[in-house]
Amino acid sequence: MIDYKLLEALATVIECGGFERAGLALGLSQSAISQRIRTLEIRLGQPVLVRSPALKATPAGQRLLNHVQQVQLLERDLTKSIPALSEPTARLRIALNADSLATWWAAAVGNFCAEETLLLDLVVEDQDIGLRRMREGDVAACLCSSPQPVAGARCVPIGTMTYMPLATPDYAQRYFGKGLSETSLQNAPAIVFGPNDQLQHRFLAQCGYHGTFPHHLCPSSEGFVKLALAGMGYGMIPEVQARPEIESGRLVSIAPEQTLEVPLYWHFWRHGGGVIDRLTNALRSTSLIRSAPEGD
Amino acid sequence: MIDYKLLEALATVIECGGFERAGLALGLSQSAISQRIRTLEIRLGQPVLVRSPALKATPAGQRLLNHVQQVQLLERDLTKSIPALSEPTARLRIALNADSLATWWAAAVGNFCAEETLLLDLVVEDQDIGLRRMREGDVAACLCSSPQPVAGARCVPIGTMTYMPLATPDYAQRYFGKGLSETSLQNAPAIVFGPNDQLQHRFLAQCGYHGTFPHHLCPSSEGFVKLALAGMGYGMIPEVQARPEIESGRLVSIAPEQTLEVPLYWHFWRHGGGVIDRLTNALRSTSLIRSAPEGD
Repeated sequence: MIDYKLLEALATVIECGGFERAGLALGLSQSAISQRIRTLEIRLGQPVLVRSPALKATPAGQRLLNHVQQVQLLERDLTKSIPALSEPTARLRIALNADSLATWWAAAVGNFCAEETLLLDLVVEDQDIGLRRMREGDVAACLCSSPQPVAGARCVPIGTMTYMPLATPDYAQRYFGKGLSETSLQNAPAIVFGPNDQLQHRFLAQCGYHGTFPHHLCPSSEGFVKLALAGMGYGMIPEVQARPEIESGRLVSIAPEQTLEVPLYWHFWRHGGGVIDRLTNALRSTSLIRSAPEGD
Repeated sequence: MIDYKLLEALATVIECGGFERAGLALGLSQSAISQRIRTLEIRLGQPVLVRSPALKATPAGQRLLNHVQQVQLLERDLTKSIPALSEPTARLRIALNADSLATWWAAAVGNFCAEETLLLDLVVEDQDIGLRRMREGDVAACLCSSPQPVAGARCVPIGTMTYMPLATPDYAQRYFGKGLSETSLQNAPAIVFGPNDQLQHRFLAQCGYHGTFPHHLCPSSEGFVKLALAGMGYGMIPEVQARPEIESGRLVSIAPEQTLEVPLYWHFWRHGGGVIDRLTNALRSTSLIRSAPEGD
């Protein structure tokens, strides 16, 4: 079996952000921590950490980290029946889409995490990369819009996010005062999350437009709304995120009949243990997407 | 001199997200675009694009893109004096910190971009990586907290963001009801932006605490606030971002006397031309940070 002392040293170095702090956390000297990491690297035949520009795990180190996190999750279930074994907290690494994290995610899982004293390592990824990290064992679960399960994992539907093409009233009047047309779509600056943002292309295709368009690139959910509010462009924004701005009239839809529905699916490893099963139930029972959410 | 037809083809493929769309934009066939990219790659002796999993520039391609963007910026200044040469828009690639983009950035530059019909490619990066991308010619400007200029670039101070350790009143009562102590800081779950987040460590050092602490990792400015609002932890949040929640009492400081001031500096290439000089003036004249901002 794997020597978990070595993996625990690795996990603690990453969690504490340094060898000295990891030593303090585990009650060991800094050189004992270094020795454990070195032993691990010799056994693996490759580095598990890079030191510069900042301390972080290599891809191989990250897989070990995920593994030790999963083992710790399983240990948690065990210590429910054998409390003497108990550890204070568990960690779970999850990939999810930026818009869920910026809107309904925390309200849906907050109580659950507080009750279970579960800590989350959240990573924001596009769906393709999130699922690849899951296949590679780098994350324990992934929230994205693909219904295609990863081999060995389960996939359940969570709900649907509605996106609307929003801009300030001034902007809408200036560029779309005469309605949506090939000319207006060709000239109106859009806001796009990144070069692979499919929402903007889906919206334009729904409008029957397939040409080019000027656009800002803004890889931040909140920044995206701020750019729209500053009159810099129109963009596909989750209705749940922009509801206050829509209600106050600061943002309006440039094409009220053109919404996009994006389904969300929760992918998780079967061997994640009871914690991940209960987190899955918390997510499945959320009413924060599709039906009227709290906003925050 | 470089054959700018080749660079223009590359820039258009990236901007349009595909060879066919780039051909439409430039009035060329798809195979003519492919031929230009191939010619460019042969001259360079290395690829400028990767096709999978998604179309994007290689590091070498990205440097070419940045160069052609800078040339296009310079052309804009020229066409101000010779309007017959005019092109509709310019693009500028900028690296900045997530919290600025999530808060005051758009309100500070929105009017300027609309008036100048300037499009932004924003990339969110930590300060070290943002400055490295600037040194490598990958971005034309970088907003971060380092006052150290990159060789050949200018660096001007923009203002200061104030961070406060915020949580829900329930959370503050539960973990810090008896005040801040070694025990409470050791047990209270924190929210940390990423493994290299220095703000949390600076806050703990100011409190005289140097041990370990449980924490969630949440690499999203808006998600960060949502996790705090869901009672999952306390975290260092920009005062400008949380002002509505502070005023409504939904978030409170767990240590009102412990704020952190983070200065922001704007780094930009000297040869960026008039557009970047005027953008710099717009940024320097913003009152959105330090003094009472609009929020949004």
